[in-house]
Amino acid sequence: MWRKRIAFAFLFVIWASYALGDQTLSSWNAGPARQKITDFVARVTNPSDPDFVKPGDRVAVFDNDGTLWPEWPLYTPILFALERLEKLAPKHPEWRRNPLFRAALAHDLDRVRASGESGQLKIVAATYSGDTPEKFREEAANWTAHTRHPLFGRPFEDLAYQPMLELLSYLRANGFKVYIVSGGETEFLRAFAERLYGAAPEQVLGSQIATHFMFADGDPILLRDPRMINHDVKAQKPVTISQAIGRRPIIAFGNSDGDIEMLQWTMAGQGARLALLLRHDDAAREAAYDRGAPVGRLDRGLDEAHKRGWTVVSMKNDWRQVFVGEKTKPAPATQDDARDR
Amino acid sequence: MWRKRIAFAFLFVIWASYALGDQTLSSWNAGPARQKITDFVARVTNPSDPDFVKPGDRVAVFDNDGTLWPEWPLYTPILFALERLEKLAPKHPEWRRNPLFRAALAHDLDRVRASGESGQLKIVAATYSGDTPEKFREEAANWTAHTRHPLFGRPFEDLAYQPMLELLSYLRANGFKVYIVSGGETEFLRAFAERLYGAAPEQVLGSQIATHFMFADGDPILLRDPRMINHDVKAQKPVTISQAIGRRPIIAFGNSDGDIEMLQWTMAGQGARLALLLRHDDAAREAAYDRGAPVGRLDRGLDEAHKRGWTVVSMKNDWRQVFVGEKTKPAPATQDDARDR
Repeated sequence: MWRKRIAFAFLFVIWASYALGDQTLSSWNAGPARQKITDFVARVTNPSDPDFVKPGDRVAVFDNDGTLWPEWPLYTPILFALERLEKLAPKHPEWRRNPLFRAALAHDLDRVRASGESGQLKIVAATYSGDTPEKFREEAANWTAHTRHPLFGRPFEDLAYQPMLELLSYLRANGFKVYIVSGGETEFLRAFAERLYGAAPEQVLGSQIATHFMFADGDPILLRDPRMINHDVKAQKPVTISQAIGRRPIIAFGNSDGDIEMLQWTMAGQGARLALLLRHDDAAREAAYDRGAPVGRLDRGLDEAHKRGWTVVSMKNDWRQVFVGEKTKPAPATQDDARDR
Repeated sequence: MWRKRIAFAFLFVIWASYALGDQTLSSWNAGPARQKITDFVARVTNPSDPDFVKPGDRVAVFDNDGTLWPEWPLYTPILFALERLEKLAPKHPEWRRNPLFRAALAHDLDRVRASGESGQLKIVAATYSGDTPEKFREEAANWTAHTRHPLFGRPFEDLAYQPMLELLSYLRANGFKVYIVSGGETEFLRAFAERLYGAAPEQVLGSQIATHFMFADGDPILLRDPRMINHDVKAQKPVTISQAIGRRPIIAFGNSDGDIEMLQWTMAGQGARLALLLRHDDAAREAAYDRGAPVGRLDRGLDEAHKRGWTVVSMKNDWRQVFVGEKTKPAPATQDDARDR
């Protein structure tokens, strides 16, 4: 009898290690990046470890474009702005007199890309406004669910990075509260953040469109104005985090120079901290770009990572699978690794 | 044997009804206000009720000054600003040349009160700046814990309204997420919101001091600037709620004309909604003021409440006890009421 029980217990342990291995970062190759993450989480969740952090303070912040889903060849919030531009153009004859808007309406993506941050923000402000937040979010949700990405050919909502979804789940299972901190506009992000990433609306901290309260036909509504406030990139990211969350994160994950200050401020807190940068070095499965890129440039960030010991995650080497729903390539490393933990 | 069991079960039910009655709004007199609240919560938490709301969408917003603790004779954030003014004055000789600041330094509270919102905001911006958010919050926490209220003689942190603390607990126990939405500055509120109200830093949506990221002695820090942004009163309250929470509340509780738009926007949502205003009509236990008050004026709000069927809570009639830690007056109504539910 006891032999049978021991045998069952043994089988259970083997099964559990497989099952857990399956849930836990199974699209990550066993390597230094994954090890850094699991070691860190083990330390901050172990009450007898000097690096233990109580659950409420386990805050993790993630950039969105280029970190949780692609930003190549153009940031998705800009692609949506171009869609809106086309749709709203008949109501805005003045757009035809603006060279940048005219180029955008003619699908001249290179010109839009070359207009840089300030040009793209103008298009965003003009096209993200004029609706209530609810109406705008609904339209964006519809677009991300049904529009195909120009390069990858699948609907945007099928382009979340599988390894990052696993990381979000893994962190939540370990008592973390996960926030999206992105230059994308907040309501645009909320349109898919819950469905794709499991991030509730209040966990989305993006750029904001100025909004005002008014009465329309006797009903109180909010209306979005054609003006961006709080453009949530670079030095604004730590400010947004402090103002909205009021706690300093212990994990920050980004992918471009726009995330440097968020990582710096995260790492400057007391106690254990983890900073990560995703490197797009996978031309075969997604895209390869860094120091010279016009979109999602990662230049100074690589130097900072080297200098300060931040973890650089290589899409090519650290990820077994890139997009959600793809077939995982068989690789014996997973199972070995699952058994190890 | 079964008789004994039934007797025990019977005793348990009686005990439970007392115990629950004790936890649930026991400082509220049995009356229409309390009934409105418990009826509403019963409906939105009952899955077979047409007004059922799923837990994630059970959002309740509360004003702070005058709703969760006193605002009479002057808003507490202003009292703290005056304290800082005195402390920081030696470093700011220019303040002596400003008539309002000079009056404030001479403890001329009437003059400060008469300077209205714009005058008081100038004092707040000047005195809430110059520190990191962490440092400022620490100083504010120390002040609210140890400074006595000029009128009530007890430390500020002992002046939370007991019935409101019970309401916050009751709502949380029923799956609500509770936010503080206040004209007070966010870091000032965070200094005591968790200790007093159980509201985590990310559940505090106050006015904000402009903040910037910089390096000091090689360390990345955030520094608060002498400029108020997002003054979170009146029409800004629904905007802040939409931007920070991204869901429309189903309960809004305020006490002055500064809360009208928050209540209007809350009530304009679909499905069951509850709007409440606390009326300060209790000169004996706290203060009595409304339509003509220079602080916490409740004038148009009373008209709106009447017109739209909002619930007006009378401090005098609806509350058995006002401040936390006071002895509850014995009143048989509690127990009857506990048994009824």
